[in-house]
Amino acid sequence: MKDNNNIKKLSSKEIAKQISKGNKIILSKTITLLESTKEEHNKIAEEVIDLIYEKTGDSIRIGITGAPGVGKSTFIESLVKHILPKKNKIAILAIDPSSQKTKGSILGDKTRMEEISGEENVFIRPSPAGNKLGGVSLKTRETILLCEAAGFNIIIIETVGVGQSEISVKYMIDVFLLLMLATAGDELQGIKKGIMEMADIVAINKTENKEDIKTNKAILNYKNALHLMKIKKSAWLPIVEACSALNNYNINTIWKKIKQYENFTKENKYWKENRKQQSKYWVKETINQKILQDLYSKFHVKQKIKEVENLVFNEKITSNKAAKIVIDIYKNF
Amino acid sequence: MKDNNNIKKLSSKEIAKQISKGNKIILSKTITLLESTKEEHNKIAEEVIDLIYEKTGDSIRIGITGAPGVGKSTFIESLVKHILPKKNKIAILAIDPSSQKTKGSILGDKTRMEEISGEENVFIRPSPAGNKLGGVSLKTRETILLCEAAGFNIIIIETVGVGQSEISVKYMIDVFLLLMLATAGDELQGIKKGIMEMADIVAINKTENKEDIKTNKAILNYKNALHLMKIKKSAWLPIVEACSALNNYNINTIWKKIKQYENFTKENKYWKENRKQQSKYWVKETINQKILQDLYSKFHVKQKIKEVENLVFNEKITSNKAAKIVIDIYKNF
Repeated sequence: MKDNNNIKKLSSKEIAKQISKGNKIILSKTITLLESTKEEHNKIAEEVIDLIYEKTGDSIRIGITGAPGVGKSTFIESLVKHILPKKNKIAILAIDPSSQKTKGSILGDKTRMEEISGEENVFIRPSPAGNKLGGVSLKTRETILLCEAAGFNIIIIETVGVGQSEISVKYMIDVFLLLMLATAGDELQGIKKGIMEMADIVAINKTENKEDIKTNKAILNYKNALHLMKIKKSAWLPIVEACSALNNYNINTIWKKIKQYENFTKENKYWKENRKQQSKYWVKETINQKILQDLYSKFHVKQKIKEVENLVFNEKITSNKAAKIVIDIYKNF
Repeated sequence: MKDNNNIKKLSSKEIAKQISKGNKIILSKTITLLESTKEEHNKIAEEVIDLIYEKTGDSIRIGITGAPGVGKSTFIESLVKHILPKKNKIAILAIDPSSQKTKGSILGDKTRMEEISGEENVFIRPSPAGNKLGGVSLKTRETILLCEAAGFNIIIIETVGVGQSEISVKYMIDVFLLLMLATAGDELQGIKKGIMEMADIVAINKTENKEDIKTNKAILNYKNALHLMKIKKSAWLPIVEACSALNNYNINTIWKKIKQYENFTKENKYWKENRKQQSKYWVKETINQKILQDLYSKFHVKQKIKEVENLVFNEKITSNKAAKIVIDIYKNF
């Protein structure tokens, strides 16, 4: 009998079939091929994405961010436990800025999300943030597609909210949830204004009830901050809710708000329009990356680059002229 | 008589001639053409750079960075006043992360560097940092070339030391000077480790004498920090010096150290090797930028992109396939 979990022995078509069946082991291994630095691995993953592409897009893609210590993992765990019984399949992709070096430090800690990580309908995966903006997020975006083809209808993308990941994450999610604390004083807790502006829902975590003075003040502060920002293209007015992931307080409300956002933007057509703009963005990002990959992979181009490098260094030609020569060779070979 | 300061009436050849004569007005206007978003302006600037390129490279390019408040402007002013009498021509390019919006806020303040800004042999110019790494630094690098052709033999590139500018600045300078304060406690004052590692000379500003306990401690701290870092390719051991730009204390020593660095690395050939590596880097950066510029400027490519965008959005083809189609059209037209 064929071992359907041994990806090396499967054709791209068979891999795509296994993913469509919801085979999490093959899903995981395909993502590994996608993230590999070896071109032959990427090629297989691309073939698979091509085969499953029709089956993608039917999920709600949720971005969740917040500064370290705000309780993102506990919040996600609590949210997932709340929505799992409703026949949802949930994929959680954590974009880890340090994973390039530690190979997934965010989720490397085995104790994290332990209550849900064993669930059949949950898939948890760290996604490398890398050092370049474009290249990395292309992989994360393709991971979303693979998860959707595997039947996951809720995709959660977790970022740490302090780096630049959020900028590209914006182009892969439908709704953006920002986790904050009710700390007095520095209201934005190191969260940049640009990230605050992206928020559709602000959840104030680690609060037990709305009547608490500190919580109340925080809600007001965030509401004021959000109202000062320009109106969103979605026409959605960002909302602020208190919650406690640890004590399961108000998590159901947060989920209701997410669904409300979905309904609201599907009704006013923003949902689709946003996906369309995102699609354009990714086409451009892919072109930018692939053309450079293609150019630098050509032997005759590499030879010419060596040649012009010397000419530039010896002040015979400028970098501009060198670039023109290289591009001409690339286009006309 | 022809007005040699009216750039619009000059040919590229005449502009190049004026720059070679040291005409600061034309130099300044050429940099403006270079930074313009209009392609026809860039084209003139590129022609000029092509014409003057042979005359570039004969300066010492000094990077100076430090956190806001460390006294960079006063330091540069003090250093410039020290070296001006020695028949030097000094260009100061300030890379201003905010200049995209404020059009040069760093040097917009008229009171800054007022003691040297009127000098015949001094040229001060803010350089926009923009939002992308590559594109911007290409312009700054070309500005250096124009200044060199105009006879400036000392180029100072000032950055704020908190952003990402330093990464690309590294590829345009010969020697890197980091300004710090003798503040106790947080020794690195928000300066990232990567920037500390780049430093060839650390100058502790706002100190009056080496015997002061705080200064002494700071010198030791920085020395320790530097010694823990891996040995530089230049084989130069980074040095730490106390100084006071305001009171002109020890500025002469800092200058001596810069000259020492120059002699040391010219002798061990690192100077030239570094310039060669930098040259390679800029060739690559220019290729990357120019090929995308070229691709997106073609009408038939733009048409094809619109077409594939829709196919991707409607899940007919993946972004990868779309990119392949666009790149093929670009290459084979």
